[in-house]
Amino acid sequence: MAEPLFQRLVIIGIGHIGSSIARALAAHPGLVGRLVIADTTPAHLKRAEELGLGAEYFADPSEAVKGADGVILCTPVGSFAAIAEAIAPHLQPGCILSDVGSTKQSVIRDVSPFVPEGVHFIPAHPLAGTEFSGPDAGLADLFQGRWCLIVPPEGADAAAVEKIEAFWAGLGARTAKMTAAHHDRVIAIVSHLPHLIAFTICGTADDLADETRDEVLQFAASGFRDFTRIAASDPIMWRDIFINNKDALLEMFARFSEDAQSMARAVRWGDTAYIEDKINRSRKIRKSLIDIKQA
Amino acid sequence: MAEPLFQRLVIIGIGHIGSSIARALAAHPGLVGRLVIADTTPAHLKRAEELGLGAEYFADPSEAVKGADGVILCTPVGSFAAIAEAIAPHLQPGCILSDVGSTKQSVIRDVSPFVPEGVHFIPAHPLAGTEFSGPDAGLADLFQGRWCLIVPPEGADAAAVEKIEAFWAGLGARTAKMTAAHHDRVIAIVSHLPHLIAFTICGTADDLADETRDEVLQFAASGFRDFTRIAASDPIMWRDIFINNKDALLEMFARFSEDAQSMARAVRWGDTAYIEDKINRSRKIRKSLIDIKQA
Repeated sequence: MAEPLFQRLVIIGIGHIGSSIARALAAHPGLVGRLVIADTTPAHLKRAEELGLGAEYFADPSEAVKGADGVILCTPVGSFAAIAEAIAPHLQPGCILSDVGSTKQSVIRDVSPFVPEGVHFIPAHPLAGTEFSGPDAGLADLFQGRWCLIVPPEGADAAAVEKIEAFWAGLGARTAKMTAAHHDRVIAIVSHLPHLIAFTICGTADDLADETRDEVLQFAASGFRDFTRIAASDPIMWRDIFINNKDALLEMFARFSEDAQSMARAVRWGDTAYIEDKINRSRKIRKSLIDIKQA
Repeated sequence: MAEPLFQRLVIIGIGHIGSSIARALAAHPGLVGRLVIADTTPAHLKRAEELGLGAEYFADPSEAVKGADGVILCTPVGSFAAIAEAIAPHLQPGCILSDVGSTKQSVIRDVSPFVPEGVHFIPAHPLAGTEFSGPDAGLADLFQGRWCLIVPPEGADAAAVEKIEAFWAGLGARTAKMTAAHHDRVIAIVSHLPHLIAFTICGTADDLADETRDEVLQFAASGFRDFTRIAASDPIMWRDIFINNKDALLEMFARFSEDAQSMARAVRWGDTAYIEDKINRSRKIRKSLIDIKQA
């Protein structure tokens, strides 16, 4: 590669995703000239430095972004407005500001008002991540073969959009563009609602009488175990996602709720045809996922 | 081992679990003298024979059980009453009749009335299984390190209980005894409810408008993908489980439903403390599972 995509790229928030980007960049040299890391949590910043994830380290994001031609917000989405307000006066013209947040309408709502003239705001969302958190949890191949959704606001600079696509493609991801509203609905059903359900059923189990609860833990069969894996995710990150994709999440939850009540009713009244039909449809969806290599 | 536990053991139903037992027995020689396989589905029986899973093959379970000292029902629990009625006259005194069904009160209700004097009925439930079905899906190490719950009816013969425990321990499983009612509640929350939820959310996704549905499949992130895995399970088996553990399943569903509605309400009204608290509790459960090596 003759010229790096970004001469000076700043990652704000060196958690699971931020540190995965840093590690993926180390594995794909040439994409970025100088990687700068900012984190307001001293322990995370110190750990990132120990791990040698970047070339420079800043506790203050607004110091870090000076002279940068790329900035990626990798903190929980609830923190974006404050960070955008703090860094905005220090962003240089031509800089591309992006993010990795799991909600997109809220991110555009919170960040756009602060974006200075001449700075390009191009939101993105890599569909990748494990249930682990923090700078130690990053994985160099986390984005390999996974989708990264690019959500350009209206009138976004085409060259800037292309650069963000090239960046994620450079880290091994497949990219697709969609509107923020559409993104938020799709992600509500594939990710946000499953997490809400997983968090809930763990709590339901925890509320059972002591004797039963101990045995729930002891005998956790595969169903429950799968649910607890995704339920182990970061509380602040998910609190922010739920609150910031409220409308789409509540719509999907209402649909799911109606369907679950209908299934429960079929169980109560022994409607075997209904139950079989629903299970057969589930299997078809699973098969579709396998066919398109998402499972 | 000087003497096999069973001289002539019959597996009725050579699907995922039945064929896993057959394979596990081949990997642990000496537990059983002669393994007999019965299946009323001609294709399954033929396939079992091609795979060489047993020593004898019968399309008629009541023929297969003649002279057996051990019989294990490995068909969907909804078929148990009819099978028990058919084989009962052919069971010899001293024979141990067991099963691998995921519901236990219904199994005792359906099978006990047919069990002849002198035959010992000792229900069991190995907490193991994948989402795959049929004789090809069996795994020799499926039970290794997993729990098998033994549910002896009142007044069960102690020696027969011990033999079933020894059998499962011989296949690598850990065993525990509990009452049928307690079993059904514990398994309702750790396995049956997660499956009901997984089947439901796949249907909810499938009902979305065409454009969104295609993208749901395309962009299935980790949350949804985990749900579809367990949703790929066998429709008849799960239909039977739901119907036959109706009371415990509906109770656990009602508890879950209340909790999910409360979570949705917290999302709607921005009750961040409630959401964080629930997610933190989920993480604790996950941590407990890891601590006791169930995850």
